[in-house]
Amino acid sequence: MAAGDSNGNGNGVPELRAMRLRLYAQHQLIAVMRRDERVCRAEGLASRSQVEIGAGGRRIQALLYQLDGDLLQPGMIALSETAWQQLDLREGDTVRVRHPPVLESLAGVRGRLYGRRLEAAAMTAIVGDVAAGRYSDVHLAAFLTATAALPLDEEETYLLTRAMVDVGERLHWDAPIVLDKHCIGGLPGNRTSPLVVAIVAACGLIMPKTSSRAITSPAGTADTMETLAPVELDSATLRRVVAAEGGCLAWGGAMQLSPADEVFVRIERELDIDTEGQLIASVLSKKIAAGSTHVVIDIPVGDTAKVRTREAGDALAQRLHAIGARFGLAVYSIVSDGSQPVGRGIGPALEARDVLAVLRNLPAAPADLRERAVTLAGAALEIGGKAAPGQGARLAGEVLADGRAWAKFQRICAAQGGLREPPVAAYRRPLKASRDGRVGAIDNRRLSRLAKLSGAPEVAAAGVLLQVRLGDVVTAGQPLLTVHAESPGELDYAFDYLRRSPDLIRID
Amino acid sequence: MAAGDSNGNGNGVPELRAMRLRLYAQHQLIAVMRRDERVCRAEGLASRSQVEIGAGGRRIQALLYQLDGDLLQPGMIALSETAWQQLDLREGDTVRVRHPPVLESLAGVRGRLYGRRLEAAAMTAIVGDVAAGRYSDVHLAAFLTATAALPLDEEETYLLTRAMVDVGERLHWDAPIVLDKHCIGGLPGNRTSPLVVAIVAACGLIMPKTSSRAITSPAGTADTMETLAPVELDSATLRRVVAAEGGCLAWGGAMQLSPADEVFVRIERELDIDTEGQLIASVLSKKIAAGSTHVVIDIPVGDTAKVRTREAGDALAQRLHAIGARFGLAVYSIVSDGSQPVGRGIGPALEARDVLAVLRNLPAAPADLRERAVTLAGAALEIGGKAAPGQGARLAGEVLADGRAWAKFQRICAAQGGLREPPVAAYRRPLKASRDGRVGAIDNRRLSRLAKLSGAPEVAAAGVLLQVRLGDVVTAGQPLLTVHAESPGELDYAFDYLRRSPDLIRID
Repeated sequence: MAAGDSNGNGNGVPELRAMRLRLYAQHQLIAVMRRDERVCRAEGLASRSQVEIGAGGRRIQALLYQLDGDLLQPGMIALSETAWQQLDLREGDTVRVRHPPVLESLAGVRGRLYGRRLEAAAMTAIVGDVAAGRYSDVHLAAFLTATAALPLDEEETYLLTRAMVDVGERLHWDAPIVLDKHCIGGLPGNRTSPLVVAIVAACGLIMPKTSSRAITSPAGTADTMETLAPVELDSATLRRVVAAEGGCLAWGGAMQLSPADEVFVRIERELDIDTEGQLIASVLSKKIAAGSTHVVIDIPVGDTAKVRTREAGDALAQRLHAIGARFGLAVYSIVSDGSQPVGRGIGPALEARDVLAVLRNLPAAPADLRERAVTLAGAALEIGGKAAPGQGARLAGEVLADGRAWAKFQRICAAQGGLREPPVAAYRRPLKASRDGRVGAIDNRRLSRLAKLSGAPEVAAAGVLLQVRLGDVVTAGQPLLTVHAESPGELDYAFDYLRRSPDLIRID
Repeated sequence: MAAGDSNGNGNGVPELRAMRLRLYAQHQLIAVMRRDERVCRAEGLASRSQVEIGAGGRRIQALLYQLDGDLLQPGMIALSETAWQQLDLREGDTVRVRHPPVLESLAGVRGRLYGRRLEAAAMTAIVGDVAAGRYSDVHLAAFLTATAALPLDEEETYLLTRAMVDVGERLHWDAPIVLDKHCIGGLPGNRTSPLVVAIVAACGLIMPKTSSRAITSPAGTADTMETLAPVELDSATLRRVVAAEGGCLAWGGAMQLSPADEVFVRIERELDIDTEGQLIASVLSKKIAAGSTHVVIDIPVGDTAKVRTREAGDALAQRLHAIGARFGLAVYSIVSDGSQPVGRGIGPALEARDVLAVLRNLPAAPADLRERAVTLAGAALEIGGKAAPGQGARLAGEVLADGRAWAKFQRICAAQGGLREPPVAAYRRPLKASRDGRVGAIDNRRLSRLAKLSGAPEVAAAGVLLQVRLGDVVTAGQPLLTVHAESPGELDYAFDYLRRSPDLIRID
């Protein structure tokens, strides 16, 4: 079916020559047309209108900007990179432009923000429109804000999870137990996934790990892993890696697993919010779409972690368990200590170096990171029947110590396209202790923000190397942390923030 | 003070040559730079980052898009039209670009969406950042959604109103009584303001009326008046018009009265929401900034009007009165019948024609519009001491009937730049009654949407001419309304919607 023919007046819609603008706008689809373009008058399109653009059998919805002058010839439409790719265009192709259909699902968003709960059909419609790129930033922000102001209840969380699964691809594995793990963020560093996958796969279990990029943190597992090996695998490659090695460490977004999640994530990041309902739907939809049967979830609890109290951690665990069960996914939660960062590095490359140090059994390897990985891998080994109850952690420790995990990790990276060395930042500057004393508190949130201001996660080498831990005795002038950045500007920006946050590391 | 020097590291920020992109994006400020531009690396700027741009003593915050290829030379930055104008640039000027300061006021927005009420300092900071263009669409939508989900209480509404007044210009008049009027929208047509101003000013009272453009309706008073005379008056012109004629009918947005309101309005329009708190702050902040002392507010109540019950109307009146009193503004509310549109036209030019018909005492003038204008003007004349209590409406009717109001209206339009004839749409198509019967209901909301789909308010001539009223007996084939549009595409689009809304005018 031609793009313009489905609602009866397609034949009257003129064709426009598409121009590749090579403009980058993340998930946002952008189109630019002349203000005097005939179709703008004919269809009543104004700047910031949403427009539907069709080419071949494909259709997208984009935000329209208009311009005067000679940058565009009459009869042309310029498209941002994501729009160009979603329409699968070649230079010289033509497209049809028109008013998009009325976005009926917005009625559900408006009702929701006035307190009416969403039912299945409304949730499905919203998530479908989001995944198809029909929601503007304003609409996306309204939906996410509404579900923060009045939190999603269990039924809504289930419906959101289901809609997010249904709108994307789904992987299937020919194995009775397919393991997965996840850590509820908020704790800088704490990059256990590469270690857990290596240990679990080394023991012969299946763990096709797909991870996300950072939401509000300085690094997601996918960001960290990308400094060690390619992570943008398509489904066929991922399947091949897992068939050969039992495990993988891939970016989930490359596979259209829960594609709406990436859109939500970018807006949540801009808002710096991350609600329980969205969190659960984000985590579980990706696990379910990835074909997992059992998942171990680490929930660090601490004053400045994402989850602040033991009670909140238990409630979250219960909600994850309940929702997972409705999809046949068994959820095992481990509530852990979230009082300080885990490992020394905060930022993609710095965290990757911690991971390598543990795998290689280096003397400088962070003991806390190793211990957490052993605990989580141990739980997975027990679930998978490779260790008796209570014996998993011991086995996991052995597999790390004797080099089997390191060997497996190297083979997984090779299968994904080749192990590589994480980059090192060009600029580094230490923060020194202003006086003698003892480290009394470390603010996880401000530490994360510091790492982000230094450029992480966009700049892989950027971040913070933490050089003290809670309780350490320090002397004036001793480095507490070192900021890593790829430019003097970012270093300055991070230190401006440090000057305004004297208590980021409190010396008592 | 040079733009780059205030926080210590301005000397290190390189200058970029500004290019006028002639790109239109409403309130949104947009900057485009090459992905490989040195300052992007140096400052860690990515696509969709907010950037601060300084030139001379001016600074703005803009949304950054990046591009590859040769559209921009290295060392250049392209700016959208609003950004170009706010920086007051000339071709060849240079600007400095950097990370904007951390947007501290967002903490207030986030707290608000989790239920914490906003205090004075937080509200002032938010509105200041909004007016300065520092909020992205995502941030704006989050703020507005949060104040819809948990409605602003009276104190917050007061604080929002005050912050919106304080952030803009303020007019002062050398008169003890400065009148104003406002109608709470939702009732299509109902364009009484031009009539009330003409009557009141003809009686020697001061009524410097500033109006807004449509939020979610097919026409605001400013949109309608613009088809009759220029409305984008600067403060000096407005003052001159009022000094000469006692009244004016100007667009408030041109004068920086409550400048944050225009930004909120555009986002509310995209969301299609309009909350009580925002409504009150929007209305009162503009009246206070315009220097009014007494305001008559019309609150139409009906099933499909903005206010649906008498109780809600009374509550809104009370809240308006209470907030107004805290600023020394006396608010008189009139709760009126909102069961059907007022007048025949819906859309800027069509409503203007109704206004002209009443002023000219034409036989076809809509009686309901005339009657409402007389009621509201009567109240204003009593407040202003020109009529005894209960006698205002009679005087208002006389001033209309004897042509004094029409003469005054012509003089006001001449002073604003010249009376003109509203445009007539190129395409018109009637909707005919499908059967004999009686008009049982008219859906105001759908009628507004129909007018908007036909192109109103952006297309001034577009809209709907309503040809029946509640209770009318109609025969099959008789026109119920006529859609006016400037293009066949918009006419089709409106009729697509009509086909899906068979009960827009219900025939019993």
